[in-house]
Amino acid sequence: MRIGILGTGTVGQIIGAKLVSLGHDVVLGTRDVAKLMEHKETRMGQTQSFAEWHKQNSQVKLGTFAQSASHGEILFNCTAGAGSLEALRMAGEANLKGKILIDIANPLDFSRGMPPSLTVSNTDSLGEQIQRAFPAVKVVKTLNTVNANVMVNPRQVADGDHHIFVCGNDAAAKAQVTDILKNWFGWRHVLDLGDIKAARAIEMYLPLWVGLFMAQGTPLFNIKIVS
Amino acid sequence: MRIGILGTGTVGQIIGAKLVSLGHDVVLGTRDVAKLMEHKETRMGQTQSFAEWHKQNSQVKLGTFAQSASHGEILFNCTAGAGSLEALRMAGEANLKGKILIDIANPLDFSRGMPPSLTVSNTDSLGEQIQRAFPAVKVVKTLNTVNANVMVNPRQVADGDHHIFVCGNDAAAKAQVTDILKNWFGWRHVLDLGDIKAARAIEMYLPLWVGLFMAQGTPLFNIKIVS
Repeated sequence: MRIGILGTGTVGQIIGAKLVSLGHDVVLGTRDVAKLMEHKETRMGQTQSFAEWHKQNSQVKLGTFAQSASHGEILFNCTAGAGSLEALRMAGEANLKGKILIDIANPLDFSRGMPPSLTVSNTDSLGEQIQRAFPAVKVVKTLNTVNANVMVNPRQVADGDHHIFVCGNDAAAKAQVTDILKNWFGWRHVLDLGDIKAARAIEMYLPLWVGLFMAQGTPLFNIKIVS
Repeated sequence: MRIGILGTGTVGQIIGAKLVSLGHDVVLGTRDVAKLMEHKETRMGQTQSFAEWHKQNSQVKLGTFAQSASHGEILFNCTAGAGSLEALRMAGEANLKGKILIDIANPLDFSRGMPPSLTVSNTDSLGEQIQRAFPAVKVVKTLNTVNANVMVNPRQVADGDHHIFVCGNDAAAKAQVTDILKNWFGWRHVLDLGDIKAARAIEMYLPLWVGLFMAQGTPLFNIKIVS
C-alpha cells in the first residue's frame, strides 16, 4: 500500500522502516528534504543523524509534507505535537481529503522541565484540534501511549499481552486502523474508546507514561487492563 | 490505630468500613453530621442514603471535619476534589499538623458532561495544592486511580496482580503508606513515582479511567505495568 508518514523523528523512522519491511511503498514527509539531510546533529532520543539513518533505510523515500500526503492512501502523523497542525497545513487539504490519518502525535511540552506539560489538554486535545481543522480527514488517534519500538513490535513486551487504544469519529476508519494494528504490527488487544473526544484521555495519560518511564528506567513497557 | 477520614461519600464509606473491620478506631468527618443523617437521597453511585449505610456500619464513628482530623493519627482525604481544600481548612491546620494525609481525591468536574474534565491539571494538581496550602502535612497521593472497592480489596481483580501508585515529598510517610496499602488492603505492587508533583500524572490518568470504565462496563478493573 502507498503510505505517507508526516515527520522524520524517531517515530516516523521506526514506523517507516517497519512498513517498508512489510512491502509497503512509503514516503516520509518533512518541511525541507535538503535541510534534513544536511542536519548533522542527533536529535533527542536518537543515536544517529537522519542522513545516517537513511543510508541504512534507503527504501524509505523522502519528500515534502505535501508529496508525502499526496503519495499516501493512508497517512501517519508522526510529527511533534506542537508542530502537527502546521505540518498538516503544509501537506495541504487537497492531499489529505477523505484519507485516514493515524494520529500518533503527543502535545508534549518539555520547555518547563520535568514532568512535561501538555500544550492542549483537559477540555480539548490535539486529536480534536486536527479533526476540527481538517474535517474531511478521518482522524484515528492511536499508538501515542507507547514507545515507538513497542508501536511496531508489541510482542517484545510481555508477548503482546497489553493494550493499545483507538478513538475517532469514523467507524470504518477505526476498523481499518484496528486491522493495521493487529495484522501489520502484531497488536493483540486494541480497545475502542469512542469518538475523537477520547483523544483527551489518551493524551493526558502521557505524563503518567513519562513517570513510569522514569521510575522503571526503560521505555519498553505498556499497560494491560486487568479485571 | 486512630484514623480520621474526611468525606462521607462512597470512598469514605468503603475505606471506613474496611478499617473498622481491621480493628481500627475510625471517625468519618463531614461538614454537618445532623444534616448528613437527615439527607434521604442517594448520591451518585450509591444505592442507599448515608443514614441507611451507617445503620449497617455503626462502628464507624461520625464527627465534624475538625473532630475527625483531631482524632486521627493518620488521615484519609476522601472528599470530592472540588471540596477538598475547604474541607481541610474546616478540619483546621492544628489538627492536621505533622500528620500523614493519604490523598485519594480527584479534581473531577462532571458539570460539562462526559468525558469529565479536571478542575486543576497539567501544570498543577490537587495533591500539590493541598501540600502547598498545608505545608506541615505529609501529603501522600495514592489510590485515586481505582474504584473504591478495588482500593480496599485489590485481590478481587486479577488476584491483585496490578499496580497502584504513590507520590509525596516525605520518604518516611510514603514508606508508611506503602505498608498500609500492602498490609491492610492487600496491594501487591506499589510503585513510587516521586515527589508530590507526580500527582499531576496520576490525576490526569482519570479521564482514561473513565473511558475504560465506559468501554468495559465495570469499574472493577485496574492497569498492570508490563515490560
